[in-house]
Formats: sequence, structure tokens, C-alpha cells
Amino acid sequence: MIIIMKRQAPAEEIQHVIAEIEKNEGLKPVPLYGIERTVIAVIGDERIIDERHIASLPGVSNVMPVLRPYKLASRETKHESTIVKIRNVEIGGTKVVVMAGPCSVEDEEQIDTAARGVKAAGSTILRGGAFKPRTTPYSFQGHGRNAVLMLEAAAKKHDMVSVSEIMDVRDVEFMAQHIDILQIGARNMQNFDLLKECGKANKPVLLKRGLSATIKEFLLAAEYILLQGNQNVILCERGIRTFEDETRNTLCIATVPIIKSLSHLPIIVDPSHGTGKIALIPPMARASIAAGADGIMVEVHPNPAVALCDADQALTIKNFEDLMEDIRPIVGAMKRTI
Amino acid sequence: MIIIMKRQAPAEEIQHVIAEIEKNEGLKPVPLYGIERTVIAVIGDERIIDERHIASLPGVSNVMPVLRPYKLASRETKHESTIVKIRNVEIGGTKVVVMAGPCSVEDEEQIDTAARGVKAAGSTILRGGAFKPRTTPYSFQGHGRNAVLMLEAAAKKHDMVSVSEIMDVRDVEFMAQHIDILQIGARNMQNFDLLKECGKANKPVLLKRGLSATIKEFLLAAEYILLQGNQNVILCERGIRTFEDETRNTLCIATVPIIKSLSHLPIIVDPSHGTGKIALIPPMARASIAAGADGIMVEVHPNPAVALCDADQALTIKNFEDLMEDIRPIVGAMKRTI
Amino acid sequence: MIIIMKRQAPAEEIQHVIAEIEKNEGLKPVPLYGIERTVIAVIGDERIIDERHIASLPGVSNVMPVLRPYKLASRETKHESTIVKIRNVEIGGTKVVVMAGPCSVEDEEQIDTAARGVKAAGSTILRGGAFKPRTTPYSFQGHGRNAVLMLEAAAKKHDMVSVSEIMDVRDVEFMAQHIDILQIGARNMQNFDLLKECGKANKPVLLKRGLSATIKEFLLAAEYILLQGNQNVILCERGIRTFEDETRNTLCIATVPIIKSLSHLPIIVDPSHGTGKIALIPPMARASIAAGADGIMVEVHPNPAVALCDADQALTIKNFEDLMEDIRPIVGAMKRTI
Amino acid sequence: MIIIMKRQAPAEEIQHVIAEIEKNEGLKPVPLYGIERTVIAVIGDERIIDERHIASLPGVSNVMPVLRPYKLASRETKHESTIVKIRNVEIGGTKVVVMAGPCSVEDEEQIDTAARGVKAAGSTILRGGAFKPRTTPYSFQGHGRNAVLMLEAAAKKHDMVSVSEIMDVRDVEFMAQHIDILQIGARNMQNFDLLKECGKANKPVLLKRGLSATIKEFLLAAEYILLQGNQNVILCERGIRTFEDETRNTLCIATVPIIKSLSHLPIIVDPSHGTGKIALIPPMARASIAAGADGIMVEVHPNPAVALCDADQALTIKNFEDLMEDIRPIVGAMKRTI
Repeated sequence: MIIIMKRQAPAEEIQHVIAEIEKNEGLKPVPLYGIERTVIAVIGDERIIDERHIASLPGVSNVMPVLRPYKLASRETKHESTIVKIRNVEIGGTKVVVMAGPCSVEDEEQIDTAARGVKAAGSTILRGGAFKPRTTPYSFQGHGRNAVLMLEAAAKKHDMVSVSEIMDVRDVEFMAQHIDILQIGARNMQNFDLLKECGKANKPVLLKRGLSATIKEFLLAAEYILLQGNQNVILCERGIRTFEDETRNTLCIATVPIIKSLSHLPIIVDPSHGTGKIALIPPMARASIAAGADGIMVEVHPNPAVALCDADQALTIKNFEDLMEDIRPIVGAMKRTI
Repeated sequence: MIIIMKRQAPAEEIQHVIAEIEKNEGLKPVPLYGIERTVIAVIGDERIIDERHIASLPGVSNVMPVLRPYKLASRETKHESTIVKIRNVEIGGTKVVVMAGPCSVEDEEQIDTAARGVKAAGSTILRGGAFKPRTTPYSFQGHGRNAVLMLEAAAKKHDMVSVSEIMDVRDVEFMAQHIDILQIGARNMQNFDLLKECGKANKPVLLKRGLSATIKEFLLAAEYILLQGNQNVILCERGIRTFEDETRNTLCIATVPIIKSLSHLPIIVDPSHGTGKIALIPPMARASIAAGADGIMVEVHPNPAVALCDADQALTIKNFEDLMEDIRPIVGAMKRTI
Repeated sequence: MIIIMKRQAPAEEIQHVIAEIEKNEGLKPVPLYGIERTVIAVIGDERIIDERHIASLPGVSNVMPVLRPYKLASRETKHESTIVKIRNVEIGGTKVVVMAGPCSVEDEEQIDTAARGVKAAGSTILRGGAFKPRTTPYSFQGHGRNAVLMLEAAAKKHDMVSVSEIMDVRDVEFMAQHIDILQIGARNMQNFDLLKECGKANKPVLLKRGLSATIKEFLLAAEYILLQGNQNVILCERGIRTFEDETRNTLCIATVPIIKSLSHLPIIVDPSHGTGKIALIPPMARASIAAGADGIMVEVHPNPAVALCDADQALTIKNFEDLMEDIRPIVGAMKRTI
Repeated sequence: MIIIMKRQAPAEEIQHVIAEIEKNEGLKPVPLYGIERTVIAVIGDERIIDERHIASLPGVSNVMPVLRPYKLASRETKHESTIVKIRNVEIGGTKVVVMAGPCSVEDEEQIDTAARGVKAAGSTILRGGAFKPRTTPYSFQGHGRNAVLMLEAAAKKHDMVSVSEIMDVRDVEFMAQHIDILQIGARNMQNFDLLKECGKANKPVLLKRGLSATIKEFLLAAEYILLQGNQNVILCERGIRTFEDETRNTLCIATVPIIKSLSHLPIIVDPSHGTGKIALIPPMARASIAAGADGIMVEVHPNPAVALCDADQALTIKNFEDLMEDIRPIVGAMKRTI
């Protein structure tokens, strides 16, 4: 931690800051008396003190951390990449995984048809919404626990791994019994109680990036899960909110190599929510894989025209087959397989 | 709703869209055959259909809603301004309310001292955090239910209204028993289960704007609460996330008059979180009140140097007294009182 | 400047960085060997070296400047506030100045009527566009030099100071002969050749903040002008670009007190462009003044219904008179006059 | 154009709007009397009227354009993709072009070495800065016209096409005599006089997207050039400004397929400025090409450690050779060549 004092901070204020640092065992303050200002460098693991406390001390102009605030999520802590294994599926290994399925599980036939279609085309993980976070209370909110059971049945029948979003801490136990991967959506990325409860569940967690979350905050949200002893966290970039309005969100592909350098956790991309436009899903899926993503997640519906939600971004099964053909050469160019 | 067809949409696609609209009782499609494109205007209450379903139909280029998607929160629905009354305190009336207190309730003495100080200076509503949403799991997370009880005791002793943040649906019942106003923080603005549960509680709700929430989404979040039958919703602008880094967030003062025109709900401003800098709290409090805000919310700590959180933005009681003096002329210029 | 080395940077890389710093007379590198990383603090005026050069050296993880990069614009360099004086008008003193007039000078009668109206209501500075920066080439581009002369005539007739936007370096000489204040618009805030040429002109410059400019970049743009020897720079906040779409831009009122603390230059606010909505101009004008702004700039047109540009945000003269009445109590509360 | 009237707009206001539309030959207003509001659809080429004028009329709530505001840049106007040809180099055809060279031309040897290195590795277009737009006036501003001549000589010697940024309208004639492609930088994307002058020059123009420009504004800036009769415009995505601070800008790869669908103009990506980090250049270059970009532009310096600018994002010639090897499989997967 580097503490920059104000231009004319008197000696007693400098001494007070030094004394505050010295209260912490293992930290050593080193004052540097410059021409215009004094700077105090702190040697030791600065994460044991709150930078905002130091920032509030009289005479302090600015505090700059030196170390990254997450530990368990950091590649500096764990050098080898994490591979999340669920039965015969690996996320974060050499294979590029494709998660596919409808925005919302609507009925048994719909999810069965979707599962059969996406499995045949190469997907190994079946997605389907049961609890839907909708901007307006007047939109369809999902079929809830019934939908969870329908998703479970379809995944078992087609020998797929299942993933579904959880919104309420009171559903964690139920979801963990029936679903392979617990998804935490963008709007709940900083719902810290939900992060903690999912961290305690003995299931992999797919954590989506919040619309206004920095990458640092994204990794700190993962840290909440990891700190509960759950090592199986999969990150998912799905777009951030910017001024651009041609797409629903701005899909930030650079997140993929940045996460790969900062963290050992696997990262996938969701081009469906990231763009909100069917025509942009194939090019953005290709771009994600070319940037090093460990997988993609897309919305597929047997008949988008009757879908209860997100109809405008759902691929048909034919579209999905085309998408798989479209990405295969890029997967190959990256020396990976599907 | 206005539906813009693609440039060369064939007649059958246009007919299909018309047929989809006609399925809804009360809606009438009116096609307008232009030179370059066909446009279909929908007459009736368009909120009964999902614009994204229409957007997904073949041949549709774009769908533009005409009506605002919230009803209960809209000033078009309820013309007179809502005044939230809690005992002798009114929020949204002619008085400008000042909510003040520490980021976190630390012990009985701290909250008692804070309450006495802010009450004496003119505050009527005591804030104090019990459950703290912290970006990193390594930061202090609040003293939980014990802190709720300490806040309740201090508020009663000093005859103040209490407000505290709730993060977990499992705490709603407990909080509603002990606290006057349930606060939903920025990170949980779209935690829809929490909105619904607070909507069911028989207590006023203070809803903070999310960091990346549009004003439309902010009012739709309020709509979730209102729809449960709870009419006592107080909105709070606390800054949005932008590229500017001189302040923690970008406090969007224009939200105040915009909300006043779109909605009947009261709106206050939080300049502490909105700027993250003590020096900016007085000017931004003045600006908020001059723009028409019904109140402000600020962090006050008897001794910021030992605060367990947000020390860098906490006013001392002396600072708070100065702030009250600072805002009085502006409150008077707005023909309001404190 | 603080240089943070990578976790396992070898000794020779650390030595190389130290040697690079030592090449600069007056700079002294102080290495601090931490547990995880080495940090090198640089003592002296770091502005003489390029931080991005240092950042590119092998083994360097991050470089953090300690000093602010602008000198002439900084309040640390010049403590007393700058007052820009033009004849009997002062900007940055105790008076709150009001700049008013049409988006575009359309003809002699229009600008004369506008000048008479705004002068009578209390404005001392007449604005009027001659060269219009328009997003699309199909929009009206302004009447050019003829408009400059019409503005000059109206300002003289009504004894007002004139201000008008300059877009092309080739117009500087002409504009400086006929107009009192040269305005540099938001889109040209980083048109560095224009900044330099206006810096050389012997006229005050009104510099608007760019839509995506940080406050640091805003002050560095002012520094370009100041460095040419022109001390009469007036800053203008006019909104930044964010995701919010209820207003054309997000007017960042906090810029006012931030600029006041960082710089000695006067700052005004333009609520017309900052919001793009007539109804928001009065509350945002009040908020700006309450936050400490030295003035406001608004668009006024004798007959907005026939205006050639920005008709949707132009006040009528009656609206402007009402605005002046509206802000007077706030101006008084701030112990200033108009 | 769709005009939405306010909820209780009286008949005379509706009639007034209709009359205003009817003043324009070729436009026909069609009023639709809804339950809550009246909507007026305008049939004909709405681009001949100013939507903001209509928005300012009494009783109007909102105006929504139906047609896109650019014509010459639109793929609806010109269906086949534009290929910009300069001697033996084509941009926008089946080949993926690679533009490479130093941020700044420093001396003859430097630019010669750079040219030789990048040419040998597969680049056909040599970039090199002569006029440098720098955030601070204290940074190196480029060697100006001398640098232009050095770039010209190096490009000729190595049989490459040259590209360099132009900032000042007074340099257009000189630059057009010596350089093959005139580059307009992000900060000048809305310097409309510069756009017009470059439009008049008989040279291809490389137009970079502004940091806060929407895609619509980007295409409208291109429209300014096209309207002068210059059909050879190459677009370049180089990142937008967002809250994320791990990268200098947020590179928006989705711009590539969006531009491809909206416009016939070629589009390339600049991952050097788009990320500001050497390690991110290869993955983002791959992603750009996988998304369909017609080329990439990267900064290469024979010896970044002595570079006068942007040292932290410059590749060495060895790095560049590695980058070319890295992108070849992706180029092949896209069925294109370099």
C-alpha cells in the first residue's frame, strides 16, 4: 500500500499515519520525504488493513493498494488452471464446452425437444430457466420448482449436465439436489448472501458478471464463493452496460484473456445476453473462442415464436446446428475440440 | 406500440405480425405502408404483450413501446405526490428530511452518541448499518441482528425514525419488527425476491438506485414493491457508475426532477455514497435540495478515525452540524423547512 | 511516481528500472523490497518522465503517478481563484453570470430580439452559434462568418459580452476580431491544434468538457491553452455520456466543487445541452448554482418553434424570465448576486 | 417518423403537428387516436425534417425516427461491400490486412527498421505517427512534416502503403501529397471541418471511432466524408470509454458484425489502443478476425524501451512475428488469407 500525503501535511499528521500502520503486526511503514509531498510505503500484506480507514486519516490525499484484493481467485495463489469436472464433462480443460437450451423451461416436451436437439449438435450442458429475473413484474417469472424438475429429467434422459439460475437463498438446498451447476445471474453478482449460500452448497457455481461490475469486483464475488470452501467456480462474461445502444449490452471479449491472466478459474462467454441479437451470436461466439474462452452459453428454443421470454435472442435448433458448424474451424484453429 | 418492419418484408410476414397482435383482446393493429418500410401501429394497452416476442417475429426490424412500462409508480396513474408518514415524520411533504447516522452500528455507545448528535442538529431519521454489503469478503460485514436491536434502542431513546439495510429475504420478518424503514441497497435493486418480500412487509421501503440502473428500471423495481400492496416506497439516488474516477460514483442530480415528473413517489439523495468524499457532501447536498429532493441521507460517525467501514466518507457530528447550517438557506430558498 | 514491480521480477530488471530513473536529473529512485513484490518510489518532479515509458520496462507491473499532471491549471500552483474580466463583466467573482441566447444566429432580427430579451431579464453575456457542430451532415450547419457579425452587432447594441463557438483553426483570427469569448465545444475538447491556436489568441476561451473526458483530461485540455500564455480560461460542464437515456447527457454537478478544489479556473454549467429537456433546465440551473457554479449558459430563442436547431431545448424569452426568477433565491442563499 | 403526443394533448396541438408535417412535400401524417394517447405516423422520407424541431412542438411527448439517418454509408443504399484499393493492396476484400508500425516516426533508421521487419512478417501497410494527439501538452507531440517525409520514404523503399494521422485541416494538402491513407483519430471523429477537408482530398481515409461515439454517430461521421465525394472510407474500432479500468478502453468487438450489417464500408480493429496492454493484443487480434474484421492495426517498434510514445503497448518485431503466426490459423478458419 502506498499512502500519498497532502501537499502541506504537517509532521504530526504524517506521524499519526505511521502510528496507525504500526498498530498492525507484520506491516512496516516507510516514509519517503519528497519535494512536494511525503509518501508512505507500507511493506507487508496490506490486505489486513482497510484502505478506506487509512484514506480517512487527517492529511492523507490518496491511498493506492499494491496487491490485488482477491487471494483464492488469483493465479498468483494457484498457478495451474482450475478444471471443473461434472461426471464426464470438464470445463476449463482443452475442450470448449457449449451450454445450450431455452431461456425458460416451459413444459416437458419443450425442454425434451431442446435437449435432444442441442445434444445431437454437440452441446453437453443443458441450460433452462426456472426462476427468471425480469425487469418488470408484469413479465413471465418462470415456472419455478416444477421447471427445475423438468430440466433435471430432460438432462438425465439425454445424459447432459444441467445448469439453471438461482435467485433466492431459500432455494439453494432444493436446487442443489436437482441441478448440476448453480447459476448466479448478473443482477445477483453482488447478492452476497446468495454467494455465501452457494459457496456452502456442494455444487459447481456459474457466476455471471454484473452489468456494472469491474473485473476486480467480479473476482471478489468469486472470492466470496471460494472462501466457503467451494472451489468449483465458473466465470461468465455476458456484457456490461455502456452508452452504446445497438446491442443490449457491450460484450467485453477482453475479459477472457484478462481473467486468464489474473485468475485460475475457467471463463465462458454468453453471446445471447451479451448482444441480444440473433445475428450477432455466431460472430461473437467465434470471437470468444478465438480469445481463449473455455466455452459459450447460448439460448436455444425449439420454437422461438412461442417462447415465453427472450424470444428475440433465441436460436432455433437449426440455427444452433449452424452455429456449431460455424465455430468448429475456430475451435480447431485454437487447437481445442468441442 | 410501434412495429417497424424490415425494408423488404413480404406481405405474409406483415400479415403474420398483424395476426399475432389481433390474438390479444383490446389491441388493434394499424398497418401504415410507407415508401421504404411498413410500420404497424398498435392501438390499446400494449403492456399486455411482450415486445420482445413481437421483436422476434420474422420480418420485424424494431419495436418501440409508446406507453411507459410501469403503472403503479407512474404519476399518470396517481397524480398527487405520495407522502410516506411514519409517526410524526413525513417524507415527500414540504419538509426536507435528513437521514443521518453511521455506516455501521458498532456498539451501543457509538449509535447512541450518533443519534443524540444528529437529532440535536435537526435530523429526524437515524440510519445505521447492521448487514453490510461489502465488495470483498475480507471487509467487516456488519454486526447483524444485534446491530438491528441497538439501532432500534437508540432510535426509540431519541424519538427518531430508524432505517437500515436488508440484504437477505430471511431477515425481512425480523427487520420489520424492529426497524421503521427497510432499506434495499443499490446492489440489490434487482434482487426481485427481496423486492417482493419487502413489498409484503407492512413497512415503508427505501429503495436505492442500482449502479447501472436506468430510471425506467429504477421505477420498475419500485413497481415490484408497489404491486405487493405496499404503497410506501421512497426512492434514493446514490450515483451511477461511469468512467469518471474523481468520485466513487457519478451522482445524477437530474434524477430528482425526472422522478418528480414521471412518478408520484418521494425521492431523496445520498451524497455520501454518491461521491465518496467528505468535501463534496455539502455542495452536493445543497444541489440535491435545490433540484427538489425530498431529503438527503448522509453518513455521520462520532469518531470516523475508528469507524469499521466507509471511514473516508463519514462526517463527524461537528461536520454534520456545519452541513445543516450550510443547507438551511437553500431549503429556505426552495420554500421548504427541515 | 510509484513503480510496482512484478511478483518475481529478477534483480537485474529492478536495477534496470532504477538506472532508467537515474538518467533524469532531479529524480531519485528509492527501492522498497516487500514480501511479495518490490516497489520503487521516485522522489522529485516525476512529470519530467513519461510514465508509459517506465510502464513498458521489463518486470514493471504498474506505475502510479503521485503528482497531478497539470501545473498551470492547478490550484496548488495558483491558490487564488482566477477572475476573467471582459469590460464590466467578471466571471469567477462573486456574481453568478448568465450566458443566454439562441443555439444558432439565424438573422439580425432574431438575435436582436433575443439579446434585448435576455439582457432585460438579467443576462450579461450573449451566446449565439455561427459554426454548428452537427452529428449529421444533413442538419443545418450554421450561417458562419455572417452570423458572427450579426452576433457582434447585437452584443454591441445591447452592451453585452459575446460568446460563440469556434470549430476551425482557420477561423481563429476572424473570430478573435469580432467576438469577446471563443468557445471550444465538447467535441473539440481534445482538438489540440484548436486549443493551441485559441491559446495564442488574445481572447478569453470558454472550454466545454468532452462527452467522455475525465476531469483530469478536462484540466489538461485547459493546460494546453494556458501554456500558450492565455490565462483567461473558463471551464464549462455540459454533461457526460452514460447509459442513462432519459436525458441527452448526464449532467455531472459534482464537477463544480471538484474543479473548485483542484483548479483556480472559473466553472459554469450548461443545463441546456446537459439535459436536452426544457423542463429540466430550471432545477439543474438551481442545482448548479447551489453547488457553487460561477454561472450558467442556456439556450434562449424568441420563437423556438421556428428555430433551425436544438428547438427542443430552447427556452422562450418568457421561460428565461421565469428561470431568472427561479434561480434568484438560490443565488441569494449562496450569498452571491446576478 | 413516429410522433407520440402527450397523454392529454388537446385537438389543436395535434392539428398543429399535422400541419407542420404537411408543410413538407412528400410527407404524409397519419394520426392514430389511441386509448391513452394519440400517435402520428409520418409516411415518406422523414430525413428531410428535423426530428428535434418536431419534438419541440407543444403537446409532443416523444419522436422516434424510423429510418436510419445515414444514407451513403448504409448497406441499404449500396448492397455490395466496398473494397478500398491502393496500388496492389485491397482493404475489405478476402484478404485480412495488417497495418503495423511505430506509434511515432522518430528517425529514418527507426522507421526503416520497423518497415523492413513488419513487411517481412506479412504486413502490407506501414503506419507511423507524425502529428500526435497527446492528452497532456508536456508529452512528445510528434516530429510533424519531417516525420511524414520519413514515413513516405520508408514506405516507398519497402513497397508498402502508408497511413498516418492528420489533426489539422491546414495539413490536408501536404499529407495528401505524401501519404496513401489519411487517418482521422478517435478524438477528431467529430471534428467536422477535418472530416469535410479529408472528404475533398483524393485519398482514402481511415476513420477511427470516437471514445464515446455510438455506432450511429460513427457512421454519420463517415457520411460527412462520403458526402464530399470520397468513397474510400475505412472504419476502425479502437475501444470505447467505460467504467472498466483493467484496460485503457473497452474494445467492442461486436462493432465488426454490426458495421458489416449496417454498412458496406470495410472495418478493421486496433487492439493496441483498444486495450493498451501488449499481452492482450494477440487474443484481441484473433477475436477481431474471428468476428469478421477486414484487418487489424498494431503498434510495432524496433526497440520499445526507447520509444517516444506509447511504449507500453508497442510490440517488438519479434512480438509482431509471433502475432502473425498466432493469427494465421484464425484467418484460415475464416477462409481468408493475409
